[in-house]
Amino acid sequence: MSQTRYEHATTALLLVDPYNDFLSDGGIAWPRLKDVAEEVGLLDNLRAIHAAARAAGIRIFIVPHHQWEPSDYEGWRHINPTQQAIMKRHSFAKGTWGGEFHPDFVPREGDVVVQQHWGQSGFANTDLDMRLKQHGISHVVIIGLLANSCIESTGRFAMELGYHVTLVRDATAAYSHELMHAAHELNGPTYAHAILDTAALLDALPR
Amino acid sequence: MSQTRYEHATTALLLVDPYNDFLSDGGIAWPRLKDVAEEVGLLDNLRAIHAAARAAGIRIFIVPHHQWEPSDYEGWRHINPTQQAIMKRHSFAKGTWGGEFHPDFVPREGDVVVQQHWGQSGFANTDLDMRLKQHGISHVVIIGLLANSCIESTGRFAMELGYHVTLVRDATAAYSHELMHAAHELNGPTYAHAILDTAALLDALPR
Amino acid sequence: MSQTRYEHATTALLLVDPYNDFLSDGGIAWPRLKDVAEEVGLLDNLRAIHAAARAAGIRIFIVPHHQWEPSDYEGWRHINPTQQAIMKRHSFAKGTWGGEFHPDFVPREGDVVVQQHWGQSGFANTDLDMRLKQHGISHVVIIGLLANSCIESTGRFAMELGYHVTLVRDATAAYSHELMHAAHELNGPTYAHAILDTAALLDALPR
Amino acid sequence: MSQTRYEHATTALLLVDPYNDFLSDGGIAWPRLKDVAEEVGLLDNLRAIHAAARAAGIRIFIVPHHQWEPSDYEGWRHINPTQQAIMKRHSFAKGTWGGEFHPDFVPREGDVVVQQHWGQSGFANTDLDMRLKQHGISHVVIIGLLANSCIESTGRFAMELGYHVTLVRDATAAYSHELMHAAHELNGPTYAHAILDTAALLDALPR
Repeated sequence: MSQTRYEHATTALLLVDPYNDFLSDGGIAWPRLKDVAEEVGLLDNLRAIHAAARAAGIRIFIVPHHQWEPSDYEGWRHINPTQQAIMKRHSFAKGTWGGEFHPDFVPREGDVVVQQHWGQSGFANTDLDMRLKQHGISHVVIIGLLANSCIESTGRFAMELGYHVTLVRDATAAYSHELMHAAHELNGPTYAHAILDTAALLDALPR
Repeated sequence: MSQTRYEHATTALLLVDPYNDFLSDGGIAWPRLKDVAEEVGLLDNLRAIHAAARAAGIRIFIVPHHQWEPSDYEGWRHINPTQQAIMKRHSFAKGTWGGEFHPDFVPREGDVVVQQHWGQSGFANTDLDMRLKQHGISHVVIIGLLANSCIESTGRFAMELGYHVTLVRDATAAYSHELMHAAHELNGPTYAHAILDTAALLDALPR
Repeated sequence: MSQTRYEHATTALLLVDPYNDFLSDGGIAWPRLKDVAEEVGLLDNLRAIHAAARAAGIRIFIVPHHQWEPSDYEGWRHINPTQQAIMKRHSFAKGTWGGEFHPDFVPREGDVVVQQHWGQSGFANTDLDMRLKQHGISHVVIIGLLANSCIESTGRFAMELGYHVTLVRDATAAYSHELMHAAHELNGPTYAHAILDTAALLDALPR
Repeated sequence: MSQTRYEHATTALLLVDPYNDFLSDGGIAWPRLKDVAEEVGLLDNLRAIHAAARAAGIRIFIVPHHQWEPSDYEGWRHINPTQQAIMKRHSFAKGTWGGEFHPDFVPREGDVVVQQHWGQSGFANTDLDMRLKQHGISHVVIIGLLANSCIESTGRFAMELGYHVTLVRDATAAYSHELMHAAHELNGPTYAHAILDTAALLDALPR
């Protein structure tokens, strides 16, 4: 892969599912993520990229998973395995602390919070593609959770839609090392235009 | 996962990229696939499922990758890694034997050949979703190549679109065992509603 | 057009934009709609179809326009003429009476309220298609406002997506007779599978 | 509407359905179009815009309707009225003169011919959106046939997808004056960002 030039006017930071349930001690999914997250330095890397994007004038798009509510999936014919788990665990439940954004990533004026996704891809059944077009975005940098499900599906969809896709190895996490390896060494290289670590991304972003 | 009932009127067999370049001795990608393909019995399993689908009155949708032509990708801004490889290797080139369907899977009357996909998902930028709806399909069984790229992206998209998704472990292949493991043991269980082997699928299909 | 059979399990009633701003005396857009609405008997017809759908076990999907908020369209490059008007008039503003559903059409348990649309089509940038598939729907009956913009775009999109589309001449309204004529006599016949009046629809619905 | 600036790098000319059946004496649909087409000067205007786009370095996207084949629509559940007509008249039949592009609009090197559409919108079930993104396009100028069906649906979809949409009143035609009026005076103003005539467009294009 050649070196990508990220211009502030055409690059977006997609921050996927920055909920307390994923990112905070006490969150429903945090115990399953903790080992990998701490090893890669997830929180610090997310904070560093987030700050660098703001400083560079790169717009931040919050790409949130559907917040669970008791009536969800009522009458659905084909609830997928991840949704089955959410039904049991009530991850990202509306009105709970776990379903709030981590305090470091609460949207500010100028950030775009797109419609919530029901599955894995932030583009599927939401307004993300249109919102990106309305801001003239051609390049997406995708960070947040989980590396092999929502991040990967968002990346695969972005590629199909015609965007330039950047993954960041240590600004995401998954439930095991094997899943991280699959996301960044096995599958990412088939669809992503750039796979960086946080240091290299910070170096490549405009100032 | 509970046992799925496959009804012939609402189930489709999606046969992805059944080109000579993937499936035949002499094909461009065959040497890279051969070990895994022979180990799982790919060709025999594809033939068995194909025949069982026909016998059951399950409609077959051929989901073909774009056939390479010299002018492809001219002026594209974000050619992805797989497309870069295709540009070098000329896989599935139009007008060549490698770009023809394997003789055992040539479409017959009643089969649906959907528009060719440029990336990995058979749904992206094609008429596959609409064609499935026009035939009343709610369940897709996805077989063919490659397990971790086109099959997986087609499956991830199908799930987002609201279909019931079945993967078949030994009716696909990939360039390594590790990629097969990632497709069926790591990622498939997050989005697919059923992951079977050929024997179990044949058992579950209507007769 | 041949006579359509509407089965309760596969038919959905799409009720588009049933806001006070459109349907209630005092609503922002009501004065512009009132003449046509009263002439066709809009409110009574919506109520009759709504009740008949409930009685028949036909699921009701509420398809709401985006509720205006002060930060809307910030930084958008291509705000369309309808959106420009909304920015001036603050139609369907969040937190206002005009942005609430008309009391006769407030969702009940079992109704599906899909994501809000930013433009005209209830399918564009929302989860409507997926939600319909999750309920096994193949036929959509589209009623509500406005005949030539949201209803027509929702109908055009539904046709492209592979649904059977029914319009109901007197269960919608527009800002002039000419616009109603364009919707039902000029354009509807190019894409809709059935164009009925309320009496004929009630007759065709299952009991 | 404010004056639009069309930049050659971000503007595309979408030429919809430039088939002999629509545009040439002897074409299947030409007799129904002829009066309106001749009155607005359709052919001359299409030629002038086409030439001006080439001269300005604006890329031309050919957006073709599906070429009819005998097996089309086999087993489809919801064939729409326009498709019913095509089945009778065999418009744009593959392998016939009527299904060839009018000689003045045959694609040249650098033009993009997108996948054929089955319905009305050039975006539905095709690769048009992705192809536009791969060329960095944000503005589409939509010309060709028919004003109230394919042109209008392509325009409505383009708006929903986040593009800036320009219609050209006298670079399209329809089967009646009333249909032209509906397209440009009634519906266009609800979704299009600019509605021009050919002279004004030529004036606004870069040189």
